[in-house]
Amino acid sequence: MIGKSIPRVDAYEKVTGRAKFTDDMAPSNCLIAKVYHATIGNGIVKSIDTTEAEALPGVVKVVTFKDVPDHCYPTPGHPWSVELAHQDVADRNILTGRVRYYGDDIAAVVAEDEVIASRALKLIKVEYEEYPVEIHPRKSMCGSQHPIHLDKKDNVLARSNYFIGNVEQGLKDSHTVVKRSFKTPIVQHCHIENPISYAYMEKGRIVIVTSTQIPHIVRRVVGQALGIPWGKVRVIKPYIGGGFGNKQDVLYEPLNAFLTTLVGGRPVKLDISREETFCNTRTRHSIEYDLTAGVDAEGHLLAKEMFAVSNQGAYASHGHAIAANGLTAWRLQYACPNIKGEAYTVYTNTPVAGAMRAYGIPQAAFAIECFMDDIAKEIHMDPLEFRKKNLIQGYYEDAYLKPIAANTNGIFECLKKGAQHIHWEEKRKKYAEQTGDVRRGVGMSLFSYKTGVWPISLEIAGARLVLNQDGSMQLSIGATEIGQGADTVFSQMAAETLHMDVEDIHIQTVQDTDITPFDTGAYASRQSFVTGTAVKKCAELMRRKILDYAQTLLEGEERTLTLDHGWILADGQQVLSLEELAMESYYSLTNSSAITAEVSTQVKKNTLATGCCFVEVEVDLKLGKIKILDIINVHDSGKLLNPQLARMQVEGGMSMGMGYGLSEQLLLDEKTGRPLNGTLLDYKMMTTMDTPDLNVDFVELEDPMGPYGNKALGEPPAIPAAPAIRNAVLHATGVAFYENPLTPQRLIAGFKEAGLI
Amino acid sequence: MIGKSIPRVDAYEKVTGRAKFTDDMAPSNCLIAKVYHATIGNGIVKSIDTTEAEALPGVVKVVTFKDVPDHCYPTPGHPWSVELAHQDVADRNILTGRVRYYGDDIAAVVAEDEVIASRALKLIKVEYEEYPVEIHPRKSMCGSQHPIHLDKKDNVLARSNYFIGNVEQGLKDSHTVVKRSFKTPIVQHCHIENPISYAYMEKGRIVIVTSTQIPHIVRRVVGQALGIPWGKVRVIKPYIGGGFGNKQDVLYEPLNAFLTTLVGGRPVKLDISREETFCNTRTRHSIEYDLTAGVDAEGHLLAKEMFAVSNQGAYASHGHAIAANGLTAWRLQYACPNIKGEAYTVYTNTPVAGAMRAYGIPQAAFAIECFMDDIAKEIHMDPLEFRKKNLIQGYYEDAYLKPIAANTNGIFECLKKGAQHIHWEEKRKKYAEQTGDVRRGVGMSLFSYKTGVWPISLEIAGARLVLNQDGSMQLSIGATEIGQGADTVFSQMAAETLHMDVEDIHIQTVQDTDITPFDTGAYASRQSFVTGTAVKKCAELMRRKILDYAQTLLEGEERTLTLDHGWILADGQQVLSLEELAMESYYSLTNSSAITAEVSTQVKKNTLATGCCFVEVEVDLKLGKIKILDIINVHDSGKLLNPQLARMQVEGGMSMGMGYGLSEQLLLDEKTGRPLNGTLLDYKMMTTMDTPDLNVDFVELEDPMGPYGNKALGEPPAIPAAPAIRNAVLHATGVAFYENPLTPQRLIAGFKEAGLI
Repeated sequence: MIGKSIPRVDAYEKVTGRAKFTDDMAPSNCLIAKVYHATIGNGIVKSIDTTEAEALPGVVKVVTFKDVPDHCYPTPGHPWSVELAHQDVADRNILTGRVRYYGDDIAAVVAEDEVIASRALKLIKVEYEEYPVEIHPRKSMCGSQHPIHLDKKDNVLARSNYFIGNVEQGLKDSHTVVKRSFKTPIVQHCHIENPISYAYMEKGRIVIVTSTQIPHIVRRVVGQALGIPWGKVRVIKPYIGGGFGNKQDVLYEPLNAFLTTLVGGRPVKLDISREETFCNTRTRHSIEYDLTAGVDAEGHLLAKEMFAVSNQGAYASHGHAIAANGLTAWRLQYACPNIKGEAYTVYTNTPVAGAMRAYGIPQAAFAIECFMDDIAKEIHMDPLEFRKKNLIQGYYEDAYLKPIAANTNGIFECLKKGAQHIHWEEKRKKYAEQTGDVRRGVGMSLFSYKTGVWPISLEIAGARLVLNQDGSMQLSIGATEIGQGADTVFSQMAAETLHMDVEDIHIQTVQDTDITPFDTGAYASRQSFVTGTAVKKCAELMRRKILDYAQTLLEGEERTLTLDHGWILADGQQVLSLEELAMESYYSLTNSSAITAEVSTQVKKNTLATGCCFVEVEVDLKLGKIKILDIINVHDSGKLLNPQLARMQVEGGMSMGMGYGLSEQLLLDEKTGRPLNGTLLDYKMMTTMDTPDLNVDFVELEDPMGPYGNKALGEPPAIPAAPAIRNAVLHATGVAFYENPLTPQRLIAGFKEAGLI
Repeated sequence: MIGKSIPRVDAYEKVTGRAKFTDDMAPSNCLIAKVYHATIGNGIVKSIDTTEAEALPGVVKVVTFKDVPDHCYPTPGHPWSVELAHQDVADRNILTGRVRYYGDDIAAVVAEDEVIASRALKLIKVEYEEYPVEIHPRKSMCGSQHPIHLDKKDNVLARSNYFIGNVEQGLKDSHTVVKRSFKTPIVQHCHIENPISYAYMEKGRIVIVTSTQIPHIVRRVVGQALGIPWGKVRVIKPYIGGGFGNKQDVLYEPLNAFLTTLVGGRPVKLDISREETFCNTRTRHSIEYDLTAGVDAEGHLLAKEMFAVSNQGAYASHGHAIAANGLTAWRLQYACPNIKGEAYTVYTNTPVAGAMRAYGIPQAAFAIECFMDDIAKEIHMDPLEFRKKNLIQGYYEDAYLKPIAANTNGIFECLKKGAQHIHWEEKRKKYAEQTGDVRRGVGMSLFSYKTGVWPISLEIAGARLVLNQDGSMQLSIGATEIGQGADTVFSQMAAETLHMDVEDIHIQTVQDTDITPFDTGAYASRQSFVTGTAVKKCAELMRRKILDYAQTLLEGEERTLTLDHGWILADGQQVLSLEELAMESYYSLTNSSAITAEVSTQVKKNTLATGCCFVEVEVDLKLGKIKILDIINVHDSGKLLNPQLARMQVEGGMSMGMGYGLSEQLLLDEKTGRPLNGTLLDYKMMTTMDTPDLNVDFVELEDPMGPYGNKALGEPPAIPAAPAIRNAVLHATGVAFYENPLTPQRLIAGFKEAGLI
């Protein structure tokens, strides 16, 4: 079953609208909660008056920052650590009187319906004492009179660095030294379903049904936020309408949980708007990079240095892990004897940045891959040639983060396929000298990407299988289907190891922390690798239990028993159907015992996926418009579990990458930090009309680390398009841009400065 | 924790109305189904016209007997058997054109709402060919021109018998031979919540949420009824409002499942009325008994013979098992060298009889215990004395049904307590000679009762435990809380074996056949015995896993590790909290593995619970009224798991037993078999106004077979009140009645015949 393009197991449910999402499950008698957001960007609440709101008929409860537990908690969807040093930064209260960004959560209303809740919000009166707002991290890290968080006087959340060899000496020894600075924008995930949850109490415990990627982590964080034992919290995750990392953070679940405790455990729904999703959930970090590199006369990298400043926004969330991940990427791709990396993550008065698909690598890759083209240009070398000369060859093991390693490395094969598709050599020459207002160019970029979080953090996953009476199988996992097709590939995995038809694997799609095995959730492109390992081990255990039971049922000498599509084979001959065996296991008067298997497994390995993007663009200099004529992503993600689903993942990632390169950016008001375009009307995502035909290819090298030869594919597709487009524009026009997205305004300004128009 | 009267774990939810029952969970967009019932008592449908019903706006589907799968299926909630001979009788279709009783299911309507569905039913036109109706089994077993089921020409569903010694010789050798005939009425369970379910399709499978005692059996029977693999069916059981055995049958779930497949998998709700519950679900069998016994000059039983004819109604349901259970009871209580038993179960044109609390024993005990008083009277012996003389003493092992046995036998102690309470000797004498219209008497009866169904059928149960991060525990079982307090005592059991506080055991109350461990459900007073064994084994496995993990965490020499209320003790000293251990198991970077335990266990033992009822009555001869002045049930059910819950079980059973003795009977029209009083207005249950103070006592002998020394308590309390009341009336008036309930009509007739009025 592995490697087959079977249809998604949830396709019919989703296409017919029958799949149940959080709002479909909410009871009709739910109370409605709404959040009162600050209308300043920095300061404190001097006074708050909720009298009128409370007096409004239909208002059940008004709660302010004064009422919430007064300890802080962390929100990122990381596995917890029993070691203090590895625990996430706890800097958030459920509600706050210290406003740190425009829209911060000050109070909340619980009412009988939406209209009353909205009206009540307008009756709350707040007086503020305002502080100056700072939205730029390089300024914020100089410190301020009122630090955003008291324990960080310089507003620096964290700083990290590393040194390999001697960069200063390497630069001195270089034939050419290149320095460039890059900046990436704030973008938002724009998943279809806004974060939504409802919570109620049952037997003295809090139940939260929520659209999340990380139910078991939500349980833990709600426990931490409310200061109650984690076992008193139950989290249920239905189908979800996308997450892309935004739902790898604990968002309003602690507030929702707290609110139900205030209304005697009645169900309370907290369904935030798209505008709140833009402003009050999480964004992708804007990061500024200063890169320096030296190359010898043949174009070999001798030294390279990265300095990064990441804009965290008002709260830590995933914090420094994103900038640090970019620092790590700086050494995973290109061989170099002398490397230096340093990164700062800085609090500012902006919406909070957190996890987003590819976790800091789209930012780093934009800087690095644009930089590679700039170096190549500087030394008059073809940028593809320059990269191939410097790429790490064959097996790689990271010196800092063992056991991150790559046993298989398909990047050279990927580059070959990409170059062939785009007719690289021909077009690089053909477009070398163009005049006129409309010019064409080809560009490319590449990346490597880790599979899971080990050894930086814990990787643990669980799975449970139950043999049904008809020989079919129930599969439960704690890992989450978030639209990526996880349920389908886990079903394929179980079918593969049990030699069954995938139709006979019934996967439990709703995760429930009371019931489904422990797993930290969907992030870090980990599930098919880490949870896949648990599924495989569980299926192997189930197979052994089935064959052991078959042995007791079959008389005579011992033969080699195997499983084959609903049959037990003895020395290759069908001797007993799996259904007969299952019926005996349930109903035998002499020897009945329902057969189940469960494993919880820690995974202590990590491997690198790679890939590249090649693109051909047409640039209209005067209109400041880029038209993508052709684009291809080529990925080495090991063995493909389901080629059709893999292609879908890549296409979705390419769309996100093109948006990052061309149009997406969340603009903030300089004075308040308020989003200026935080709606789907004003925030420009790629639509189907903007999207060219998407070409996708793969290099399938089975990685011996992956449970089925597979490695990361969920996030990588979002990485390479933006720098490839920028490099293609450079090829077409000779103008290098240092900040994405390449909007018409930015292009026109650049072309004017270059004297092209 | 065992033996403590902790409050029910679901008390708060139920008292506050927050516990979710099936109807609370049904989605708001549910279609509504209603059943078209036959308006004749026997015959065939000649023609059916649904045109007008189908044309009614809002009607989504009309389905008739012509549309359903044409194979038959069984409905009783028995564990399935892989042996053909032990499988239940399959004599029912989802809908039928062969009407076998008044109200039989001919067609069904699915509509947008209740009103439309009801109106559509009235538009269906049916023409019948009518056959004569027979509601009496002794007549029906003579055969009929149109047998109720074609394969049973004489309408006898089944017959069984046994012989021990030589009854004919025994009777010849007897000093006194007594013969009597008895008859018990049809009664109905009258659980608060009528049977209700809703069904929908998900990923090509059918999901049924239903108020049932037996979710895993419903899954199987729906598979059988629809002719689909059982793994394609998922059954979810929320809280239920009582069942008493009616929901130990598969009622309308197959029809509901079938209907959703006809409307493209949209959710369809089938919520039947109280009138349908009386007529179209199940009842307690009416059984007629002819009893003969011979005693020697000292009053020892020398020979006894039971002949029983049980009225099955129109379909087999649990069928002959109920009459057979009464036959078995005939030998479990009173020692006798020569015993004979014979029973017939006969189809008639009446509502279908099935399982009801105590499964045939209230009927048999009514006959046997009234008979015991009659024999005692015949030989001028005190009836308690007569019983004590003949009761089996000490250890008992059944000759026919090994391993049914009693290691402990508290009946003599029970009798002592009961007699003391009622002042037996004093009042037997005091009331011996009375005149006047108002007379008093004391009576008693006793019983023994099996614990579970082994070895007649399979006993298997499963449990799963998960250690939470805070050291608390999730407990999942497939056994069902049906109002009896199962969730509470299972929580106590786990807490006992794990040395934990019961507050730290979080039990999963909703059973879901996709997820919760396999268990056949709530019946046969089996759960605390059979499922309790699984819970105990699972808790022992969990304890071993915890202590093994503790051993790896604790350095140094091996010490004796034990669990104690959230602590690991080493040689009795606290060395590690369970919370710390749990956190390590989830989050250790070196050695993490979430700790879970699951067992599925077959139980191959059975033990007898016993008990008795003593009652004092005042009889108003002219009014034909019985007033209960004092009543006590005394039970030997082994060690009590929760004395307060045990008392509640007994009080509920006593109420049911008094109704059986005094007022409850479902009357049928002779010509059609139609229920004459099938509503809660006309069917006379005991109300709180009718109920005297209830006295309950126990004899606690720990039974070595029970997992915690416990044995059956769920059903037995319903058994002894009715014959005790009848015997008290005999004592008060000298008039023996041979049919319950003792309604005013029946009493007046009896007293007139006896010349008392």
